[in-house]
Amino acid sequence: MIQGIGASSGIAVGKAFVLPNWEWEVPDQKIDVADFAREFERVYEGIRTSKNEIEQIKDELREVVGSEETHIFDAHIAILDDPVFMNEIQGIIQRQYKAAEVAVKEAIDHFVTMFDLLDDDYMKERALDIKDVGNRLLKHLLGVPEIALPKDTQPFILVAKELSPSQLAHINPDHVLGIVTMAGSTTSHSSIMARALGIPLVVGIEGDLKEPITTGQTIVIDGGDGKVFIDPAPDVIEQYHSLHEKQTEAKRKLQHIADRRAVTPDGKALRLEANISSMKELEIALSSGANGVGLFRTEFLYMDRNRFPREEEQYEVYRSVAERLGGDPLVIRTLDIGGDKQLDYFELPEEDNPFLGYRAIRISLDRKDLFKTQLRAILRASAFGEVKLMYPLISSIEEVRAANAILDEAKRELDREGIPYNPNMKVGIMIEVPAAVMIADLLAQEVDFFSIGTNDLVQFTLAVDRMNEEISHLYDPFHPALLRMLVQTTAAAKKSGITISVCGEMAGDLRALPIWLSLDVDELSMSAHSILHVKQRLLDTRQEQCRALLEQLKTCRTSGEIVQRLEDFSASSISPVFSADKVE
Amino acid sequence: MIQGIGASSGIAVGKAFVLPNWEWEVPDQKIDVADFAREFERVYEGIRTSKNEIEQIKDELREVVGSEETHIFDAHIAILDDPVFMNEIQGIIQRQYKAAEVAVKEAIDHFVTMFDLLDDDYMKERALDIKDVGNRLLKHLLGVPEIALPKDTQPFILVAKELSPSQLAHINPDHVLGIVTMAGSTTSHSSIMARALGIPLVVGIEGDLKEPITTGQTIVIDGGDGKVFIDPAPDVIEQYHSLHEKQTEAKRKLQHIADRRAVTPDGKALRLEANISSMKELEIALSSGANGVGLFRTEFLYMDRNRFPREEEQYEVYRSVAERLGGDPLVIRTLDIGGDKQLDYFELPEEDNPFLGYRAIRISLDRKDLFKTQLRAILRASAFGEVKLMYPLISSIEEVRAANAILDEAKRELDREGIPYNPNMKVGIMIEVPAAVMIADLLAQEVDFFSIGTNDLVQFTLAVDRMNEEISHLYDPFHPALLRMLVQTTAAAKKSGITISVCGEMAGDLRALPIWLSLDVDELSMSAHSILHVKQRLLDTRQEQCRALLEQLKTCRTSGEIVQRLEDFSASSISPVFSADKVE
Repeated sequence: MIQGIGASSGIAVGKAFVLPNWEWEVPDQKIDVADFAREFERVYEGIRTSKNEIEQIKDELREVVGSEETHIFDAHIAILDDPVFMNEIQGIIQRQYKAAEVAVKEAIDHFVTMFDLLDDDYMKERALDIKDVGNRLLKHLLGVPEIALPKDTQPFILVAKELSPSQLAHINPDHVLGIVTMAGSTTSHSSIMARALGIPLVVGIEGDLKEPITTGQTIVIDGGDGKVFIDPAPDVIEQYHSLHEKQTEAKRKLQHIADRRAVTPDGKALRLEANISSMKELEIALSSGANGVGLFRTEFLYMDRNRFPREEEQYEVYRSVAERLGGDPLVIRTLDIGGDKQLDYFELPEEDNPFLGYRAIRISLDRKDLFKTQLRAILRASAFGEVKLMYPLISSIEEVRAANAILDEAKRELDREGIPYNPNMKVGIMIEVPAAVMIADLLAQEVDFFSIGTNDLVQFTLAVDRMNEEISHLYDPFHPALLRMLVQTTAAAKKSGITISVCGEMAGDLRALPIWLSLDVDELSMSAHSILHVKQRLLDTRQEQCRALLEQLKTCRTSGEIVQRLEDFSASSISPVFSADKVE
Repeated sequence: MIQGIGASSGIAVGKAFVLPNWEWEVPDQKIDVADFAREFERVYEGIRTSKNEIEQIKDELREVVGSEETHIFDAHIAILDDPVFMNEIQGIIQRQYKAAEVAVKEAIDHFVTMFDLLDDDYMKERALDIKDVGNRLLKHLLGVPEIALPKDTQPFILVAKELSPSQLAHINPDHVLGIVTMAGSTTSHSSIMARALGIPLVVGIEGDLKEPITTGQTIVIDGGDGKVFIDPAPDVIEQYHSLHEKQTEAKRKLQHIADRRAVTPDGKALRLEANISSMKELEIALSSGANGVGLFRTEFLYMDRNRFPREEEQYEVYRSVAERLGGDPLVIRTLDIGGDKQLDYFELPEEDNPFLGYRAIRISLDRKDLFKTQLRAILRASAFGEVKLMYPLISSIEEVRAANAILDEAKRELDREGIPYNPNMKVGIMIEVPAAVMIADLLAQEVDFFSIGTNDLVQFTLAVDRMNEEISHLYDPFHPALLRMLVQTTAAAKKSGITISVCGEMAGDLRALPIWLSLDVDELSMSAHSILHVKQRLLDTRQEQCRALLEQLKTCRTSGEIVQRLEDFSASSISPVFSADKVE
């Protein structure tokens, strides 16, 4: 058994197929002054072809993994468009009389070495991007054919030294049961993509591997705990086969409760909704029994193009989703870019701390034109379903009032134009900034609903960027400070009689369910694949017991105590404990 | 009148001296293969001389502006040490047969162009650093003498296109009344230095300037509001002369109350302490009547060298400060690096959001060796004065307990070694993370005092990086959420009977004083130059009235209302209103 790092969960059992390295010999051809123009043109042609190819990959992948993940490739296009990169290549051709492919190879090596030297994680990530896109460009200049994976054999487990997003993009999940790479990390672009594709992946086995794996060997991988077995004993294969089947069986069982109403044995009904960012995700959500959409991330509409989407384009999408949902609610969150989400065509300032920066409602209130376009589109869609509007990152009453003033303008315009909308469309806010919790009683008097965004709220409350590996252990949704904030926020909502929802990752965390029941929240919105797990648990949990539990939790002084009590509660009230997949 | 941007406050009236640009002609000298070694050696020699010169500047400046500001020059040294920079220079010498100075000039131009092209503020800042240090290196290779400012004339107002930190470092504040630059921003390294040096500075007048300023013209500048008058009418000169005198007079008046006890007319005594980071700052603080040090930033001890300071070195400093303070308290904060504070010899990870990252107590608990060394030094100093220990960035009880466990270890070691310390040394924490406010009642049972760090607390609570110009208007210490946090934190401290202090910038903000009095805080710690302003106001303010005011503030729904009431209160209860200098 070899211990790697589990980067995409799931079990796979099959034969290994070892991928050759995507590197080629580049013969050192000299050229003449007369050839400069031709070689330049070859580079330009290669860049054009590479860009087309990348755009095509993006289109194909978008269907499978969604828009957010395909943006990995925008960095590649940006490199091909970078004048510094082209200048370097032309310089080598002109000064050293070298052919296009040699110049490209040297330019790649130059930049990769330079960025590597800078000893900066951001730069190292750029170095990997340059290498990946550079190899693509080289491939075209050398006329090397794409490395084709076998399609006529049994599905296999792919083994590679490392895997670039470009390579992963060519993988057909029907032929690849799982992937093992020597290098890599769970946060790399490739790992993100593997999770999006649902392919089990173990990375970083290099240290533990004694002999190289060869094509044809039998391999068992567990992408959850990072275990890899090479030529394992039959009982290991048997064991993982049956584990794999159990997982599949558990999934099928869950599917049975998709149509059941989400209500506790003592009658507390909870609306289980989905967080989505596309029509495709909506379909998955509906097949998982979602009772609506508690968070429609509109960013994808903006990311998926090279200019701001027009009112009409947005309206069509919002209307389709609203209609598809029938009478079930659709909460549309206004544009939430900035932080770690960027648009290619909207230059945001470079920020030292983007999470504490120019983002979300701050941009919307600053760019009234963009904001009003979106509000008009949402208002128009509100005529076709139970559409609700939600503002992100609200920290003060002034922001709510400023946003509502623009909404009123949009309504007056639509009135003048005779365009229908729901004049009583509900307007709510995300509670994700600590200040909003502190003044929740005041905010509750200004809006129709709250939706607690636990991800950002935990980050700001604890001053912890959870993407930062150095301190991610401090990201702790069960910190007593958080519990108090949740109590305070729900109390304020209840007192004003407004709806209270939760839409952060905690909404899909089974351990947190007793908290939501004890606080009597109205709606939970989560990743589609968590809905059935939560529903299953809900069907077995009594709200009354959760309320007693909350009183105990309030006496806890540390998150360790809180988690312990939640786990004890699960163990005593429900059996067997059903653990949900890790929420990505 | 020309409108620029006020970058360092203060008024100056005098004759202009226009600084020539610090750029030289570099003749394009060709060399021979045989000269390579000699030219390499010239570059090395130039680098050595430049580095020595920069170290010397740092030493000289440290006395005047403190350690933090001189670290601007560490970036310069890092560039000179960068192998990429040297490789580029050698490459040009070898491949293009050019002399050292030509190669250096081309390398600088190459990197500056490249970083500028990347269109990234961080990179542009690096481009400026490269240009500045590159010019220094060129100066040595060309043997150009330093541009000397006239010393035998009347003090003058310096006018320049832009001013690099290197140039500013050579300026004698006795000869330069003020500075005007065409370009620049308030956040540039040069502006930070000008403020530290106390030289009035207006930047960015280019847009408004019609004719170039010439040496000898009379100029009036107001570094507060960014106004510049060129050849102004006599009444303008007179007006600013008298304004300047008033400011000087007001400062002198303030000095009279330095020895008075800080107590309100109705008998509430408040200890006014200083935030310091060096012995030098302590002396300024004492001359401003500080009743102790409420925040000793120990970072400078770590920044001011090329390795971690040894226990003995730290002990000497802590002891000197404690002894100099006599019986007055000295609150020593343990190492607070990370975020925007780096050490040259301790590589911190590159972080996307350093403010939410690996910093302060998180590093100390991770690097127990470093932490214990500091704790031992502080303990030893506690035998020589009223030393208190303070942990920064605490967000949970577990962190306090973990830190105290290491403190106990240090105590046991000292016991075994027979080294004296104060076994009852008070231990407190910064309240600067929202979570700490939420569980202030629990934390109050674990420590001897709280010190509210308003700067970080406001940033995290509002999710606003105040250094980010795009959203700095959202940084709002008078947000109702903050007021509630202050009420909650002080109530928790009072209930447990522990001392409550404030050490963020708000402590020195005159508008906030009624809040502190109404909350009955025990100590305010601030920049030395705010102490007398606050004391003057304190001597005129009744705590009883502040308490009534607080009840009104609690009903406010927006920070606008809160600020209005605070201003009304000032206007009604104190006359004339005395406005403090802007706190840096």
